[in-house]
Amino acid sequence: MIESRFWAYVDQHREQFLERWRRSVQQPGISAQKTGIAEAANVTQAILDEAGFATRLLPTAGAPVVFGEARADRQVGTDNDAPLTILIYGHYDVQPPDPLEAWISPPFEPTVRDGRLYGRGSADNKGQHLAHVFGVRTLRAVEGLPVNVKIILEGEEEIGSPHLAQFVLDHRDELAADLVITSDGPQGANGEPMIILGVRGILSFELIARGAAWDNHSGNKGNIAPNPAWRLVEVLSLLRAPDGTVQVPGFYDAVRAPDEGEQKLLEALPFDRESVARVIGVPVETLADLDGRTYYRRLAFEPSFTINGMISGYTGPGTKTIIPSTARVKCDMRLVADQDPIVIDRLIREYLAEVAPDVEYISHGWMHPSRTRADHPALAPLARALERTYGMAPLVQPALGGSLPDYVFTKILRLPSFIIPYANADLANHSPNENMSLDRFYRGIVATAEMLSELARHADAIRAARAGGAAGHRTE
Amino acid sequence: MIESRFWAYVDQHREQFLERWRRSVQQPGISAQKTGIAEAANVTQAILDEAGFATRLLPTAGAPVVFGEARADRQVGTDNDAPLTILIYGHYDVQPPDPLEAWISPPFEPTVRDGRLYGRGSADNKGQHLAHVFGVRTLRAVEGLPVNVKIILEGEEEIGSPHLAQFVLDHRDELAADLVITSDGPQGANGEPMIILGVRGILSFELIARGAAWDNHSGNKGNIAPNPAWRLVEVLSLLRAPDGTVQVPGFYDAVRAPDEGEQKLLEALPFDRESVARVIGVPVETLADLDGRTYYRRLAFEPSFTINGMISGYTGPGTKTIIPSTARVKCDMRLVADQDPIVIDRLIREYLAEVAPDVEYISHGWMHPSRTRADHPALAPLARALERTYGMAPLVQPALGGSLPDYVFTKILRLPSFIIPYANADLANHSPNENMSLDRFYRGIVATAEMLSELARHADAIRAARAGGAAGHRTE
Repeated sequence: MIESRFWAYVDQHREQFLERWRRSVQQPGISAQKTGIAEAANVTQAILDEAGFATRLLPTAGAPVVFGEARADRQVGTDNDAPLTILIYGHYDVQPPDPLEAWISPPFEPTVRDGRLYGRGSADNKGQHLAHVFGVRTLRAVEGLPVNVKIILEGEEEIGSPHLAQFVLDHRDELAADLVITSDGPQGANGEPMIILGVRGILSFELIARGAAWDNHSGNKGNIAPNPAWRLVEVLSLLRAPDGTVQVPGFYDAVRAPDEGEQKLLEALPFDRESVARVIGVPVETLADLDGRTYYRRLAFEPSFTINGMISGYTGPGTKTIIPSTARVKCDMRLVADQDPIVIDRLIREYLAEVAPDVEYISHGWMHPSRTRADHPALAPLARALERTYGMAPLVQPALGGSLPDYVFTKILRLPSFIIPYANADLANHSPNENMSLDRFYRGIVATAEMLSELARHADAIRAARAGGAAGHRTE
Repeated sequence: MIESRFWAYVDQHREQFLERWRRSVQQPGISAQKTGIAEAANVTQAILDEAGFATRLLPTAGAPVVFGEARADRQVGTDNDAPLTILIYGHYDVQPPDPLEAWISPPFEPTVRDGRLYGRGSADNKGQHLAHVFGVRTLRAVEGLPVNVKIILEGEEEIGSPHLAQFVLDHRDELAADLVITSDGPQGANGEPMIILGVRGILSFELIARGAAWDNHSGNKGNIAPNPAWRLVEVLSLLRAPDGTVQVPGFYDAVRAPDEGEQKLLEALPFDRESVARVIGVPVETLADLDGRTYYRRLAFEPSFTINGMISGYTGPGTKTIIPSTARVKCDMRLVADQDPIVIDRLIREYLAEVAPDVEYISHGWMHPSRTRADHPALAPLARALERTYGMAPLVQPALGGSLPDYVFTKILRLPSFIIPYANADLANHSPNENMSLDRFYRGIVATAEMLSELARHADAIRAARAGGAAGHRTE
């Protein structure tokens, strides 16, 4: 392992970087409660200004986006073409802090204990996006900035980024770039850096079966009054076979199987059946048929169809001899590239119109999946930069099982996108005593400097991938 | 129509009979709240004593049974054999009276308004069983009692008669009789008297599917963590086909098809599709495939399988992206003669052990069905007596869709049983302002006298049916 050349600068500025990070955490912007958003945007903008970014606040129909730009220093770079442009995404809003009594130090009084900064937003997402900000500053100070950097920090991530897609669409020219980097969430359990190449999308909906206008007596009307609970069971059975196969015609048509490179990545990921079983809360025998490859393939490359909840009739103690008047089920489908939730929504509606026109379908929103190809030429430079920073090769995950609005970059901007978490695995995001270790913060700064420097050295290949459309961003 | 010869006596004693009825209503015995039961039993016993019955309080593991006997006067009767014995069943406990504020006059201050006695228990069941008590007295006074009468009034009917079966089993010799009469519930909407020959039984149960020890995230664990809501949908689909057929092997084996006489009864019952649709709360088109025969056949001769309620996971507003840890469904099956709920319970358990050993089955109790044959020789005399009393031929219903503990007579005592309601259709039982019309009360007294007198005239045929086992009570 070669010690990074950026540590000297970072070490000189530890106090200063920490002070800015604290200042950011001190100003809560809680999107779910619509409090402090404007103030948090202003504090964030001021920190970016100070770090040498040209900033603007860009309005949306909701919270403003803090936009910062750092232009490449012309003298650096390995070729004569224009430098690469790297787009960095993060968010300045935070989760509500409750339950307040569970915090050891108050959530908005950032406090260092045992080498960690505690406070709401310390890791999600302030420590992570500020590591990028100071990484850019460090790289410029040490050897000049070899790439253009654009950073967008939104204020509504914690409520599902309702205006991000429209923002990106409206600003697609200003956001032009060669690739996107997002740092959010935890690194590996053993401190491994990670590169995540995509996410599953989501389609949420509710089905309502209706019977009579009120509950009826199961004795006096059993076999006469319609039973919407049975109807819902029937319709759910029409939507999904017992083996888990979704029965909606066309549902799987756009599913893109993992290619050879993605298969290899799956196989290289660490898998500990016992620990997965413990986290889920099942006996390990339940997962007997799982190995690492099937585990990650099911999460990354196979759509899921989950009943989140259902309710009908009487559900209290004992019995009540009724025929319920309604039955409801809430579901989500996690979609994989290249399933389009808008298409899937239409397919479900068409299928229901045919097999269950009596059942009401209510959409509760969607997010597209994203997938950046494993053979993208930016991947190797990013991995090298992370290995140099952390002393360990990164785990490269083809896709997360969960959903993030990554599609706004891969689908709307048609860019390759890399999710590279900077926070410790036990960050307690969304929980009391959220924290990020100081080591992860400073190492994130170094990681950004290393990655941007390394990417610049492979600008030609990255640009070629983009121009040729060979690899990077086939995500519709 | 021949005017009943019993009116003169009844008219002379109107005030006295009403006073006893009031006295009975004044003393609440609320089984669900375990209040006033002993007092209500005592008041009931005193009224029976006074009316000429030899009474005893017979203990059970719960509330005592008031037992009364009136022996036949030996000089009457059309043959030289021992007189018939008629067993009358009723109950002295009442429903809780709340909501109190909805009562026009207080529930335990019986009040006459517009020709009705208002009060909790006035119709359910005090006015009805007292009509029998005073009917026996009237018959004896007018022409001597030609049959033995035994009456049992229990104190736990409103909580499902938990000790009645054991009581009947323990006292089967003392309860020896030729047939059973129960008066409970409403007469026809147009004041028609009714004779009901049976009820459906019931088996109540709950199924619980369990997944992980806690809810999991539908993105991070979707396709990995087990989903008990889907499992429940699968298991329910294994239990019942979309056409309503129960899939439990052997479920229909004991179902006894209606015979010709029962078919005829079905066809004679009045059916008004519009009014049925209005009562259920569905558009009348929903019932387009129903005619009177199918309507009553489905209720009387076909078992039903109802989901009473189900719950799993998140059921609040909006969405929550979880995989639930459990899913529960509550069901009841209404069983027809000769389905045995204990057998059905075992068949379900066996089937589940085979197809869904992972799903928990919890029994919530059962009641056997009952069915007395339509060609029983007591039916015609009873119908004649009712026609003489009410000026209208009774509606004869082969079985109710609901469930009553009638099986303790048909199955344990192996007796034919006739349910003959005395109350007006709008009795508001179990509701505020419960009432029974004075006319229905006095007419019930006359009806009892007429029925007992008429039965005595056909003692030979009734006894023959009993001895031969030809008809009356094949109900296992």
